[in-house]
Amino acid sequence: MAVQYQPPTEDMAFVIRHVIDSQKISELPGYEEFSEDVIDAVLEEAGKFNAGMISPLNTVSDETGASLGDGHSVKTPTGFKEAYQQYIEAGWNGLACSPEYGGQGLPELLATATNEMLHSASMSFGLCPMLTAGAIHAIEHHGSDEQKQTYLPNLVSGQWAGTMNLTEPQAGSDLAAVTTKAVPNGDHYLISGIKIYITYGEHDLTENIIHLVLARLPDAPAGVKGISLFIVPKFLINDDGSLGARNDVKCISLEHKLGIHGSPTAVMSYGEAGGAIGYLVGKPNEGLAYMFTMMNHARLNVGLQGVAIAERALQQALWYAYDRVQGKTLIPGDQPNSAAPIAYHPDVRRMLASMQCRVQAMRALAYEAAAHMDIAAASEDAQVASAAQSRVDVLIPVVKGWCTEQSQDIASLGIQVHGGMGYVEESGAAQHLRDARITTIYEGTTAIQANDFIGRKILRDEGQGIGALINEVMDTGTTLGNSEDTALARLGQQLQQGAQTLRDCVDWVLKHGKEDAAAVYFGSVPMLLLAGDVLGGWMMARAALAASKPELINDPVAIKKRKAALVYGDLVLTCGLGRAHQVISAGTTIKQSLAL
Amino acid sequence: MAVQYQPPTEDMAFVIRHVIDSQKISELPGYEEFSEDVIDAVLEEAGKFNAGMISPLNTVSDETGASLGDGHSVKTPTGFKEAYQQYIEAGWNGLACSPEYGGQGLPELLATATNEMLHSASMSFGLCPMLTAGAIHAIEHHGSDEQKQTYLPNLVSGQWAGTMNLTEPQAGSDLAAVTTKAVPNGDHYLISGIKIYITYGEHDLTENIIHLVLARLPDAPAGVKGISLFIVPKFLINDDGSLGARNDVKCISLEHKLGIHGSPTAVMSYGEAGGAIGYLVGKPNEGLAYMFTMMNHARLNVGLQGVAIAERALQQALWYAYDRVQGKTLIPGDQPNSAAPIAYHPDVRRMLASMQCRVQAMRALAYEAAAHMDIAAASEDAQVASAAQSRVDVLIPVVKGWCTEQSQDIASLGIQVHGGMGYVEESGAAQHLRDARITTIYEGTTAIQANDFIGRKILRDEGQGIGALINEVMDTGTTLGNSEDTALARLGQQLQQGAQTLRDCVDWVLKHGKEDAAAVYFGSVPMLLLAGDVLGGWMMARAALAASKPELINDPVAIKKRKAALVYGDLVLTCGLGRAHQVISAGTTIKQSLAL
Repeated sequence: MAVQYQPPTEDMAFVIRHVIDSQKISELPGYEEFSEDVIDAVLEEAGKFNAGMISPLNTVSDETGASLGDGHSVKTPTGFKEAYQQYIEAGWNGLACSPEYGGQGLPELLATATNEMLHSASMSFGLCPMLTAGAIHAIEHHGSDEQKQTYLPNLVSGQWAGTMNLTEPQAGSDLAAVTTKAVPNGDHYLISGIKIYITYGEHDLTENIIHLVLARLPDAPAGVKGISLFIVPKFLINDDGSLGARNDVKCISLEHKLGIHGSPTAVMSYGEAGGAIGYLVGKPNEGLAYMFTMMNHARLNVGLQGVAIAERALQQALWYAYDRVQGKTLIPGDQPNSAAPIAYHPDVRRMLASMQCRVQAMRALAYEAAAHMDIAAASEDAQVASAAQSRVDVLIPVVKGWCTEQSQDIASLGIQVHGGMGYVEESGAAQHLRDARITTIYEGTTAIQANDFIGRKILRDEGQGIGALINEVMDTGTTLGNSEDTALARLGQQLQQGAQTLRDCVDWVLKHGKEDAAAVYFGSVPMLLLAGDVLGGWMMARAALAASKPELINDPVAIKKRKAALVYGDLVLTCGLGRAHQVISAGTTIKQSLAL
Repeated sequence: MAVQYQPPTEDMAFVIRHVIDSQKISELPGYEEFSEDVIDAVLEEAGKFNAGMISPLNTVSDETGASLGDGHSVKTPTGFKEAYQQYIEAGWNGLACSPEYGGQGLPELLATATNEMLHSASMSFGLCPMLTAGAIHAIEHHGSDEQKQTYLPNLVSGQWAGTMNLTEPQAGSDLAAVTTKAVPNGDHYLISGIKIYITYGEHDLTENIIHLVLARLPDAPAGVKGISLFIVPKFLINDDGSLGARNDVKCISLEHKLGIHGSPTAVMSYGEAGGAIGYLVGKPNEGLAYMFTMMNHARLNVGLQGVAIAERALQQALWYAYDRVQGKTLIPGDQPNSAAPIAYHPDVRRMLASMQCRVQAMRALAYEAAAHMDIAAASEDAQVASAAQSRVDVLIPVVKGWCTEQSQDIASLGIQVHGGMGYVEESGAAQHLRDARITTIYEGTTAIQANDFIGRKILRDEGQGIGALINEVMDTGTTLGNSEDTALARLGQQLQQGAQTLRDCVDWVLKHGKEDAAAVYFGSVPMLLLAGDVLGGWMMARAALAASKPELINDPVAIKKRKAALVYGDLVLTCGLGRAHQVISAGTTIKQSLAL
């Protein structure tokens, strides 16, 4: 039986308050109202909404899926339309958006928590607002005033939805190969071409869809320097703001996917009848740069989907493991009866513990990145803002790559905890693996995150940003390592070892990055995952430190947090260090592998 | 596009001849005809048959699936019936069966290779003969002469199929909780109860189905000591051997599964109309012991499914990676053009190399277990036979647990290599992950394999069997480590380190097994997987040694094998050693995890 989602508000609040230190966010200009009361109220309301309204749609949307009807229209799963209306009416769509366009102006940190809930409740549903957020971000940062006035209020309210149109059949992840054309035509451009993998490219949730499309002007330079960004509304907007004519863009098919069945993944055809009307965003040929400014948000959100699915898979597994009675426990004193729930079998216990401590580490790391986004965007101290942005830049590929890779393993363990029932779709466990499987692919595969991490985040600044981060991790390790509490001291030593191993790998990358780029990139994914294991350990170590403060020493959430941190040290932090070998030996290995 | 299967006969033949040393099998009584010519001929014919006849059914059987029709009948996917007829007419079903009942009497080693091909071609299809083999094994070893004469010829020919009925809804993996009843009634018993997860419990491939059913006699002791084994034919057999009345057993539903859609997984109801007629196999209350004698074969076969799906996922990924041109390569001199197949991107190369070297290691380890089965069964030297049986007993949980866990990761990497296309079902990559996902669950979950490994294979004989194996691994490591070839010497040192780490873990298990069983079993799966990484490395090291013999030094297969072994050393052997920490720290970790 697929169990309904229960929002982990206690862990979320602990992370926001005690690990991230929400105080420093509420001191930022514009976030004065971000009080502990607001955190509690928003988490509680979001929890109620997502558990009560969205979570029940998850199974049925997987079974029925989105479907392509007549006239290129797409029907979303039963219940999505009503739920979406309630979602936007309650104002969730604009939680972290600017009040200037009707948003609530709350920090990204808090929206990250509520978005996690949304994706846990139904990732298929959550993708629609997620894509809209990307469109809002692009127009807010790069659009003209007129474009902002025309599109942002309805996108922020959720009255309209947004999409991102990057990929083309021949190009894949290689945007240099984009061939969609944009021909100037008076105050607009005529867009023509085929875009694939367009999430919510067509649907019935909103009255209009605002497509953001990468295309090439007639005189554009070749490669990524010749890509421009366009707004292409499904329905044109009249001068009075009402909806006008249908634009020359349509969905020509939907993909038959492994998971996220409720989310329509469209093949979009632009300009079959002469050209879709599009409006240039910003300057010509700057499309890729604009994409990059949106990318941090988009990648944070996909990393967060990894957290969200892992949390849901964990809840499903915990429910089953305590519900299913079978065999006898070996764990002494834990369950006196001879017939015990399988949660009391040592290996099931190991799986649950491994899932649980990782989900907490992943959540904390994603929230850490979000908090630094807030600081980077809002701090009036340029140096503070710049340091925060540098931290965001280093963290984002790790959050995206590591959290999503972990989510595959956690969702798979979720099936394993169920035994045979996990393989039967009715249990709901398998859906989580099927849904999670896309997260390491879209918004840049894990390899693309790893290339970004090595190339732009380590080699480009010669290890400055990552070095500063590793120093902080080492400091936390030293503080914990000196603790009189032997368990905490042990965790501290594990973290120091992790930080040192990561530093060794960074040094190796810096040393070989120029003369042996192939070898360095061959080891890039193991390196990214090593960084995730260590940074996740850092977040758990900080949580353990927070939990040992006098005022929290008897707090039940803090007590559990401390245990989870210790388990993370043994089950994840130390075991991940073997990845370093793949990084350091990559130069040798890749040469051998060429002949395979 | 899902590509068709290409039998890896070169690698199979290399492993059988040069790594396993097929000579020692052909010296066994009864296997005199197992010559190099026979190996080549059988591999070639099996390759043709499975690639040409079975592989094309894989995608369509996934899409259409097996379905429950009227009157409790089950319709297998289009094409299965015709293919099955050809399969049995060609004699594949009885390849390793006794000539006394119409089999070909070839070694298990060779049947393991042809079975690998069958499961690569279509695991859903291959499950039917696999279950029949289990029934043959049970009746041949424990049935009466009359039962053998009645059932074996038609089971060996494949005219009839067999099933294994163990699991019940309330019992799961805990056979002590089996409640199906067997009431004596003249020369037979009346069987009643519900059995679940019955692979090919009902289907239209054969005219009769011979169910082997675990049930409890009225006076049976509680628990596993009160389980008996029964033959329950779907159609009773008349004295003249013709089919008689329909027995009181039927399929009441099929599971809706994540994968292996072509294989019907039935809920079977026995005795709704008064009792299904069943015949006791062997002695009363010995059912579990009989199951154990079959288990090695059954678990080898599921481990082999792991190898088979991993091989198919690898082939699919290789095809895509060399077909799909995108971006530029970083690998110097490897591909001069600016636009390169993605196989030339470093991370894709890493994924392919990691998949490839593991598939080869898994194959070799499975074949090694099969060869020892042949020696244990056929050697006239009691000491040799007993040593071989001990080796089989140690290897089987590793082959089953490790190969199937690897297959999940390899099939998932297969999707990742495809990028977005991997998530679209049409590519065929996703099916391999869905199909593979059952292999770590059925025929004993990975935890059950790990418990068997720790409890029966390490603690019971106080480390004798595993100790002898580790000594052999260490010897291979020492031989390689002393090589003048520096690359081989490096691999030798990696293997020595692996053997030592495994030995340390075994010592830890032996030391704590009694007083802290919960901690030992908490680390049992990491320990099993560590053993797999190391033993896989041992097989690859032996392959590298064989490849460096003067007569093979210019053999193209041997040259590739050597490279694959070196890659395995760097990408798998050394990286897996982090698992040891989970074993050794388990005593601490489990206590913390109790409070989560």
